[in-house]
Amino acid sequence: MTTPDLALVLVGFGHVGRRFVRLLNEIGDRLDFDWRVVAISTRHHGSVLDPDGVDVVRASALVEENHSLDRLQAEPVERSGIDVIRQSAQALADEAAEGRLVCLESTVLDIDRGEPATSHVRAALEAQMHVVTVNKGPAAFAYHELEALAEAVDRVFFFEGAVMDGIPVFNLVRETLPAVRIDGFRGVINTTSNFVLSALERGQPFDDAVREMQARGIAEADPSLDIDGWDAAAKTAALVNVLMAGAITPHQVARTGIGDVKPADVAAAIARGRRIRLVASATRQGGSITTRVEPEMLAARDPLANLEDTENALYLITDLLGEIGIVQREGTLTQTAYALVTDLSRISQRLREWDAR
Amino acid sequence: MTTPDLALVLVGFGHVGRRFVRLLNEIGDRLDFDWRVVAISTRHHGSVLDPDGVDVVRASALVEENHSLDRLQAEPVERSGIDVIRQSAQALADEAAEGRLVCLESTVLDIDRGEPATSHVRAALEAQMHVVTVNKGPAAFAYHELEALAEAVDRVFFFEGAVMDGIPVFNLVRETLPAVRIDGFRGVINTTSNFVLSALERGQPFDDAVREMQARGIAEADPSLDIDGWDAAAKTAALVNVLMAGAITPHQVARTGIGDVKPADVAAAIARGRRIRLVASATRQGGSITTRVEPEMLAARDPLANLEDTENALYLITDLLGEIGIVQREGTLTQTAYALVTDLSRISQRLREWDAR
Repeated sequence: MTTPDLALVLVGFGHVGRRFVRLLNEIGDRLDFDWRVVAISTRHHGSVLDPDGVDVVRASALVEENHSLDRLQAEPVERSGIDVIRQSAQALADEAAEGRLVCLESTVLDIDRGEPATSHVRAALEAQMHVVTVNKGPAAFAYHELEALAEAVDRVFFFEGAVMDGIPVFNLVRETLPAVRIDGFRGVINTTSNFVLSALERGQPFDDAVREMQARGIAEADPSLDIDGWDAAAKTAALVNVLMAGAITPHQVARTGIGDVKPADVAAAIARGRRIRLVASATRQGGSITTRVEPEMLAARDPLANLEDTENALYLITDLLGEIGIVQREGTLTQTAYALVTDLSRISQRLREWDAR
Repeated sequence: MTTPDLALVLVGFGHVGRRFVRLLNEIGDRLDFDWRVVAISTRHHGSVLDPDGVDVVRASALVEENHSLDRLQAEPVERSGIDVIRQSAQALADEAAEGRLVCLESTVLDIDRGEPATSHVRAALEAQMHVVTVNKGPAAFAYHELEALAEAVDRVFFFEGAVMDGIPVFNLVRETLPAVRIDGFRGVINTTSNFVLSALERGQPFDDAVREMQARGIAEADPSLDIDGWDAAAKTAALVNVLMAGAITPHQVARTGIGDVKPADVAAAIARGRRIRLVASATRQGGSITTRVEPEMLAARDPLANLEDTENALYLITDLLGEIGIVQREGTLTQTAYALVTDLSRISQRLREWDAR
């Protein structure tokens, strides 16, 4: 069996994108595919397109030193993410036709409409590229449209990193729970909020904790998206759309953030043997699905109560197997970057199956 | 794409086997394969072989009324499990050659040598059958031999149900965690022991709790295998052999059961804000793997401490993603029977891929 040779187009090259290329180099000997990065698009640091392969170490260094990627290009041009996607598909027409051109989308979340990520995904699929994103927007705002498009062009639209980083959630259900119906879920799925609540329990100030999450590259670029519950609402919408065949946007999730949670509140909860956690949930009742993100006062034995700092967990409510939980005990950039690796590996498997035909 | 048509040979037809055929009928419209049972072998209730399909409802009723399956046969014969496997393969030679004949092994655990389950698996693979088992013995005693045999004959040897019933453990790692190395694990993976410890905490007598697990069909036929830690040791060996590339048997696991845990012990633990749980664990240190099953006194915030009654959990220690937990909150026969369904679905997928070539 031949090892698939993937050409990667990185749209977004922030903390996650740069950790991703370092991770690929670190675990290269374990991968079931070969790879080269053929293009990188950024919002503030220019872009580069080279069908023979971009020097990703140099590209990372440039961005980290706040220089432009245009320096890697003989004739730099101003290009949008969409431009980079389309030009890459033209320059690598063979790879696109053979299903070996992959767009890796890691731009920041926009909670109004899930853009420009959704347009990036659409443009990439239309250009015959597989798409992997860690952005929650596309699955939260336009899952059914994008999935139908992906099927129509015989490419994949994967987004394991949209919820709980590289810890399997979507792949868990798709690959390991055949014939099981998901009737709801309950989870602690926003890392920054959980870190802040844990910090308040330790007596650390709210704003310090937020700054620490920003410094680690975990908080959203605008941390109010975490604090106000938008990130959890976007994940909730993605889970409902994908796992429960719902069709909602984050704006339809009943949402209360942790902005009003005071140190006295968490102390009072602990004094009563309880803990406050930001819980995202969905419940199917008859034909409709109720969704909610809000701080809940949990009994000590609730499986979500003891999640601390960067721990996340999601409990799926299933019809055949009762509740099944998946727990992430560490949340760093490596976990997020791994999400791209796991989805790439699924693309590689698919290419091997095609190859065998 | 055609729907694969599977012919099933059931070796063992106890609580799990009978729940399995009921479950197939309950969720028939969700399955990605068609099926018929062509043979059933039991230890105490005879056997039946009919290439056109056995009436499983009648077969279940016969066994539940303590009659013999020989009644379903025009000319009943005394047959061992191995005989049934070999005769089935002869009678269904086309299905065997096409990879559509599957042996479902659900005999009881033998902790001395993992027999006769291991011989059943070997005989079935040699007869060109795929094999799915919920018995821990084959993976605990002979994983590498059986896996090599399966590869050599181009058939599969699956055993998702060997640990945590149908909740994905082996499939989780194989299907959703590519390129991740498992360096150890910690888990509460014996349901009967956990139920007994929870019962002691409630003030229920030890023996009552064991009887309740037997009545529900969850305790091993000989419940001392649960109480003495043998079941957990067999699961530990299976996990080490499959996920950590170890090569051990249950007899090499350092093992202490819960037989000596007294009501006063669990009460004293709770008074100190702690809980006693039977923990199975493995740790890779340098070139060797240390394994252990023993009652541990856990801090309240330990993720294993709050597992009650039939809850199970396994935390995998990984190199790339830190600790990942999978939690089963309900453990009934349905979960165990589902393990056979999930592995059958993987066989069905494989047949579809073959078909597409």
